[in-house]
Amino acid sequence: MSLVVHKYGGTSMGSIERIKSVAKRVAKWHAAGHKVIVVPSAMSGETNRLLGLAKEISADADPRELDQIASTGEQVSVGLLAIALQSLGVKAKSYTGWQTGIKTDSSFTKARIESIDAQHLLDDVNNGIVPIVTGFQGVDSKGNITTLGRGGSDTQAVAVAAAIKADECLIYTDVDAIYTTDPRVVAEARPLKVISFEEMFELASLGSKVLQIRSVEFAGKYKVPVRVLSSFTEHDIDIAVESKSGTLITFEEDEQMEQAVVAGIAFNRDEAKITLRGVPDSPGIAYKIVGPIGEANVDIDMIVQNIGEKGTTDFSFTVHRNEFKKAMEVLESQVRPALGAKEVVGDDKVCKVSIVGIGMRSHVGIAATMFKALADENINIQMITTSEIKTSVLVEDKYMELAVRALHKAFGLDQPPA
Amino acid sequence: MSLVVHKYGGTSMGSIERIKSVAKRVAKWHAAGHKVIVVPSAMSGETNRLLGLAKEISADADPRELDQIASTGEQVSVGLLAIALQSLGVKAKSYTGWQTGIKTDSSFTKARIESIDAQHLLDDVNNGIVPIVTGFQGVDSKGNITTLGRGGSDTQAVAVAAAIKADECLIYTDVDAIYTTDPRVVAEARPLKVISFEEMFELASLGSKVLQIRSVEFAGKYKVPVRVLSSFTEHDIDIAVESKSGTLITFEEDEQMEQAVVAGIAFNRDEAKITLRGVPDSPGIAYKIVGPIGEANVDIDMIVQNIGEKGTTDFSFTVHRNEFKKAMEVLESQVRPALGAKEVVGDDKVCKVSIVGIGMRSHVGIAATMFKALADENINIQMITTSEIKTSVLVEDKYMELAVRALHKAFGLDQPPA
Repeated sequence: MSLVVHKYGGTSMGSIERIKSVAKRVAKWHAAGHKVIVVPSAMSGETNRLLGLAKEISADADPRELDQIASTGEQVSVGLLAIALQSLGVKAKSYTGWQTGIKTDSSFTKARIESIDAQHLLDDVNNGIVPIVTGFQGVDSKGNITTLGRGGSDTQAVAVAAAIKADECLIYTDVDAIYTTDPRVVAEARPLKVISFEEMFELASLGSKVLQIRSVEFAGKYKVPVRVLSSFTEHDIDIAVESKSGTLITFEEDEQMEQAVVAGIAFNRDEAKITLRGVPDSPGIAYKIVGPIGEANVDIDMIVQNIGEKGTTDFSFTVHRNEFKKAMEVLESQVRPALGAKEVVGDDKVCKVSIVGIGMRSHVGIAATMFKALADENINIQMITTSEIKTSVLVEDKYMELAVRALHKAFGLDQPPA
Repeated sequence: MSLVVHKYGGTSMGSIERIKSVAKRVAKWHAAGHKVIVVPSAMSGETNRLLGLAKEISADADPRELDQIASTGEQVSVGLLAIALQSLGVKAKSYTGWQTGIKTDSSFTKARIESIDAQHLLDDVNNGIVPIVTGFQGVDSKGNITTLGRGGSDTQAVAVAAAIKADECLIYTDVDAIYTTDPRVVAEARPLKVISFEEMFELASLGSKVLQIRSVEFAGKYKVPVRVLSSFTEHDIDIAVESKSGTLITFEEDEQMEQAVVAGIAFNRDEAKITLRGVPDSPGIAYKIVGPIGEANVDIDMIVQNIGEKGTTDFSFTVHRNEFKKAMEVLESQVRPALGAKEVVGDDKVCKVSIVGIGMRSHVGIAATMFKALADENINIQMITTSEIKTSVLVEDKYMELAVRALHKAFGLDQPPA
């Protein structure tokens, strides 16, 4: 019998019927003798509705008050789920963030968890009670309600699992697993049984929407085994099967780990590339370019600096496509004249494709395989960046699906592991 | 410059536009130098919506969880109002019940306030901040969220006013004053400038919907001056005028008190009368009749015992019309056979009409004037009960409006006071 945290997303809590369905699942785990703590999100659409009300009053509302308002979505959810469990004969008790003792810093709307007082949750499960804890929120040292920001419920679930030293944190969502790549792009995409924490972290950073990146960070920091699985399976739940379904994010690389060198292919359409040409090559130019962009609140993703002609250099980087115009303006109006650079050119018709796998640490020639697969399809690579377990390339966005499919095949991801 | 509590009901908070309108009013009081604490209700309809969700899951939901859910309506309101005030340049800060330090007992859905830690509210107003406190809720000694039950926002506002020793608690609502009687029944009904606490308490007990009876009780216990006034007046608010408008519920009988002997006429259509005839007259019969009715959770209002024939008595009482059938069944099946009474007769076509006034203490002949006015209209009185400052009669319900109008005129309530 295990001690587990169940996390349910907004879609899983999207209606009274779906809440009852979540209750049935939890009741079944409880009846099988497992100790379960549940962290549900707000009903889907509720957080947007609440923040929409605030926005009608002021576009620039006080973040403390936004948190006061937004945190109620989860508070309603935990109460409703407790009632649903009780109506199935299961003892259940809901807790808000402050009632749970989830202490955060005071960064309203994006607070970070500092500590969790989990003893009462353990007391509850040891007394046969299912505690239901709000996701997404906590309380700061002055008693203000804080929220963890979008996707914070995943983080909260993992944090609770860490605090109670749960055997596993099961994240029920609307996908049934982490896939080798997006099945909407590659029909042959396969669900992964196991993925390493580092790989999951890279995939989350690269824009995989399944898990919020901070929850993966938290899982990594506290070594919490996390399983991603679907809450939309039919109701004759077989817990023995469910305990092995979906994708387990693990820290034990040797055990069970699939043999594939590359675990998955990620991609991101939201990129735009900007190049400053003919920059006089002198120390500190990178800072003189990146600094003003940062001051304009634009995040930079990839950065590449090439050697150019006659003592000058070309400096390229990517930003989110929505911030392309803003970044171009800053460069044209401030940076180019200040540095005496030749010209600013930009392209918002690009995308980033990445291969991720901890096998890349120990295998050589992975990048070569990647570049060959793209060359075979006549796809030109515009930029390259690499990390220990990831290689990303920037290509013209019309080639995105083609590139992803080619790489998926080149690394044998369409075949089940040996 | 005064220290005041403003209370706004659900209708006053019913839309974003109306919330902005509340903010304008509070900002004006603030700008005039007053120290204001605001207690808003949930947006109208919101509490019903939330409890409706719970009811969809279970008709018999855990009251603790209902409070967890229902308390969020006010939490959203205080946040929105804080944002609205801030957008007008006023420093404002919202507080939930537990953040305010409103301690209650653990009677979920109908908790009673035990204490309020008001120091931080005074600190706020002394620092130029407008604190906005949720109505309707608190926290028990174990950290559970509790609600005070319907209308609890009035009680909370009065309790906060008591805790900070406010000069006045202004209850903004959708009526502009307490009237001598319901203007929908008597066109000549006049707004009262002042009413005594005792009179208000009797009127609230008799079914006047303007103020919740517990808030009046609280005001009486802690001697909080309460003013009832409309939040629907136009926006060029003149605070000097507003401070004198509506109806002030006061404790200083001599000062300003109107000279009328009777302050108002109350009435209630929801009555039903039951009589147990031919009960053998012996000690303890009242308890033997009233006991089983109470056990069936039926509240009894008026009680009259008459002497009957040959050592028997007739025992009559009234109940809420909705509980008439239930009470009749209890009497017929249990009480009548047990006591050997002759018969049970009932009538649910009755209503109660009352005159209320502290002048009744010192004036004689008030009841006589009442009975004569009714007799002049040929209205038969079925039951009479009296208290120090109130006389109530039960009459056939088709005469209700006629009786109220006759009494309103007989006591000169249609004329302005001298």
